[in-house]
Amino acid sequence: MVVNTNPNMVIVGSVAFDSIETPHGKKDKLLGGSAVYSSLSASILAKPGIVGVVGDDFESKYCDFLNSKNIDTSGLIKTEGNTFNWGGKYEEDMAQAYTLHTHLNVFEKFKPTINENYKAVNYLFLANIDPVLQMSVLDQMTNLDFVLLDTMNLWIDIKKDELINVIKKVNAISVNDTEARQLSGEWNLIKAGRLLQNMGPELVLIKKGENGTIIFYKNDYFIAPAYPTTETKDPTGAGDSFAGGFLSYIAKNDGVDFDTIKKATVWGNMVASFTVEEFGVEKLKELTEDDIGKRIDEFKKMISF
Amino acid sequence: MVVNTNPNMVIVGSVAFDSIETPHGKKDKLLGGSAVYSSLSASILAKPGIVGVVGDDFESKYCDFLNSKNIDTSGLIKTEGNTFNWGGKYEEDMAQAYTLHTHLNVFEKFKPTINENYKAVNYLFLANIDPVLQMSVLDQMTNLDFVLLDTMNLWIDIKKDELINVIKKVNAISVNDTEARQLSGEWNLIKAGRLLQNMGPELVLIKKGENGTIIFYKNDYFIAPAYPTTETKDPTGAGDSFAGGFLSYIAKNDGVDFDTIKKATVWGNMVASFTVEEFGVEKLKELTEDDIGKRIDEFKKMISF
Repeated sequence: MVVNTNPNMVIVGSVAFDSIETPHGKKDKLLGGSAVYSSLSASILAKPGIVGVVGDDFESKYCDFLNSKNIDTSGLIKTEGNTFNWGGKYEEDMAQAYTLHTHLNVFEKFKPTINENYKAVNYLFLANIDPVLQMSVLDQMTNLDFVLLDTMNLWIDIKKDELINVIKKVNAISVNDTEARQLSGEWNLIKAGRLLQNMGPELVLIKKGENGTIIFYKNDYFIAPAYPTTETKDPTGAGDSFAGGFLSYIAKNDGVDFDTIKKATVWGNMVASFTVEEFGVEKLKELTEDDIGKRIDEFKKMISF
Repeated sequence: MVVNTNPNMVIVGSVAFDSIETPHGKKDKLLGGSAVYSSLSASILAKPGIVGVVGDDFESKYCDFLNSKNIDTSGLIKTEGNTFNWGGKYEEDMAQAYTLHTHLNVFEKFKPTINENYKAVNYLFLANIDPVLQMSVLDQMTNLDFVLLDTMNLWIDIKKDELINVIKKVNAISVNDTEARQLSGEWNLIKAGRLLQNMGPELVLIKKGENGTIIFYKNDYFIAPAYPTTETKDPTGAGDSFAGGFLSYIAKNDGVDFDTIKKATVWGNMVASFTVEEFGVEKLKELTEDDIGKRIDEFKKMISF
């Protein structure tokens, strides 16, 4: 599809239509998927290019929209069939998604191919897909400086060895508290984070939803509370918004040190705090660097003593 | 019982023997109860006097120990029968206590009487007891500057009106996230905190266990993550340790403003982070102001960016 930019980060993940029900309402055919949430979040600071697959039902307006946000879609392949469709429901606590249906459709045979435009890019986000595919992406990239990997309980259950193999080769992993416990076999999150680092990555990001993020970098760690939103309408995409925002901050600053990582974590948290305020990607459509900066200032005040 | 000091804060609550089982072991006849945990925590900065009841089985060594920590026990009444005994169990997540037994014993007929030594004290912690008794304590005190109230789901269930009546009259309440939601009828904790303020107290402290504390003071709020302990052996008494530590900081500084409240919150969180590292009050036996100060310095580094 359309090429817009020379991307400075590559995102490989899902592009989907979501059907979402929360106590605040019910919406169908929302543009979603990990590559969409993370690229929109990243596009505020960086120029992401996405690798994914969509079906015939993915009208050109969706690509136009992504392109309008400086997201390169040359890695987005259209094939015969329907776009991946996920249906989920959240109860009042908004802490957990209950899957109502998963129609993989064209996503079932997704084999990510990295085009020439993307191969030499330095920053890569491997969003949650089969770890075997994540590994195949790593093999195709030629000039990586920093790779962030996301995953989910499914892969820990059914492809743990393959997942551990790819985790060994990345710089950072982003998991939620449940996944961190499951993958490390340790309940205490501080110990779990250290065990995950021992698997290879020098940076481990543990996401705790409304309870913020703990990150482990080399021998240090950092605790970032979440921004306390009063209007969580739809938590879908919070984790991918965090990851996209985080990596865009690293890519923009073109370097990895603990101070940049801490600021990138807070940046990612703030982006995610906006995402959840509306259904789908609605809030990300108009979000600016200035909005995020203001919220960071507000957040700094909230935690200072 | 023995008078040691002229207390500058009064604590009314339970004195108990606890039987506790966690994944780290099982212990019987541990000195416990809200008045014990909170007074030991408070004794590092303040001179607490406790009001409570114990039975014949409460050997003098327990009082001697409390007195050795400058805790005034002239308000602790010994009556015929056994001391309150609670048995609880924690699963691996340590987030929730499962009650195995509750023998109220002498605590069943507890009617707090405030002695002359305590009546004019300025700072009061009403630990978790029947809200009718909490009100009777308020009526007996003559010179209060600041009252912190704690409660539990039981009173929200069975004596909500009485609880709301006493909440109206205090400066601050300390509740956990579940209680905040139950009492306010609102899931979102930021909104719940504001609704609780509307009941009367200008200060609301919402405790989220390993996820820290959110406090609401007038129109402001403050978020304090918990110190991330790697060795939680027994979470019993964490909330009371927080409350005792918090109020002792306020009492020591003899004034209530947002800056002091924020520092008091962090102080209380750090005290609680030590309490849970050992069974019962073991860790509080030797804890010093210096230990807490060092942990606060470490904590500041963890959250700075």
